[in-house]
Amino acid sequence: MQQRVSLITLAVSDMGRSAAFYEALGWARVKTDDGVVAFDLIGQTLGLYPRAKLAEDIGIREADLGRGAMTLGYNVSEKQEVAALIDVARAAGARILKEASDVFWGGHHGYFADPDGHIWEIAHNPFSPLSDEGAFRWNGYG
Amino acid sequence: MQQRVSLITLAVSDMGRSAAFYEALGWARVKTDDGVVAFDLIGQTLGLYPRAKLAEDIGIREADLGRGAMTLGYNVSEKQEVAALIDVARAAGARILKEASDVFWGGHHGYFADPDGHIWEIAHNPFSPLSDEGAFRWNGYG
Repeated sequence: MQQRVSLITLAVSDMGRSAAFYEALGWARVKTDDGVVAFDLIGQTLGLYPRAKLAEDIGIREADLGRGAMTLGYNVSEKQEVAALIDVARAAGARILKEASDVFWGGHHGYFADPDGHIWEIAHNPFSPLSDEGAFRWNGYG
Repeated sequence: MQQRVSLITLAVSDMGRSAAFYEALGWARVKTDDGVVAFDLIGQTLGLYPRAKLAEDIGIREADLGRGAMTLGYNVSEKQEVAALIDVARAAGARILKEASDVFWGGHHGYFADPDGHIWEIAHNPFSPLSDEGAFRWNGYG
């Protein structure tokens, strides 16, 4: 098994509300009319899909969907971008879990939750600079 | 906000168990000694981090971590790779949620859960072929 993730699928309760939320962050969806709202990322896709349909697709109860806790991280090159993006998320209707803050290891970050509670971290990690294309490599906390 | 995800962080209850699970899938961790187990993906990183520490980092209760239902998809170029990788996951200790199966839209897929319930889909989508480097673009179901 190679080290890659093709699709990050967020299970959502209201497709229109969630699509509007990510569009309000400045994202442009791929044109599709197959019941999925897709956003192209670097080498992968983030998809929005109805909770009930995703549970049906897997063959589990909807209540069993949300067991695996995970967060999606969005790293930025400049420290001051963190607060700016937390404000973008707030304006888009996100629930802010943590305002832009210095972190003990020398970074700076904030957290928000999207309409269905998917947690995003906006982070500046001075020890793991982004590539020119925005790709991220983990070099530790420093 | 650009369309990218830098870090997918899986909150886990036993770092050693989860690291061994992903290594049993054939993945090699980045050498770090900072309390994170990191695997380099294409242009991003998948990290394992203790549930309690992730909740503390965000500033929420651990019980509030798992609200956002999502799945990670791993697409393959050949249909028969799906069953083979479901077997790899089974051998690594995964709970198989759905064996390799044809899907109504013309694809083929299976699902498993890792030790903490994070759901992975192994999928062959003949309408969205992978690039030579393994990158994925959503072209719909066909």
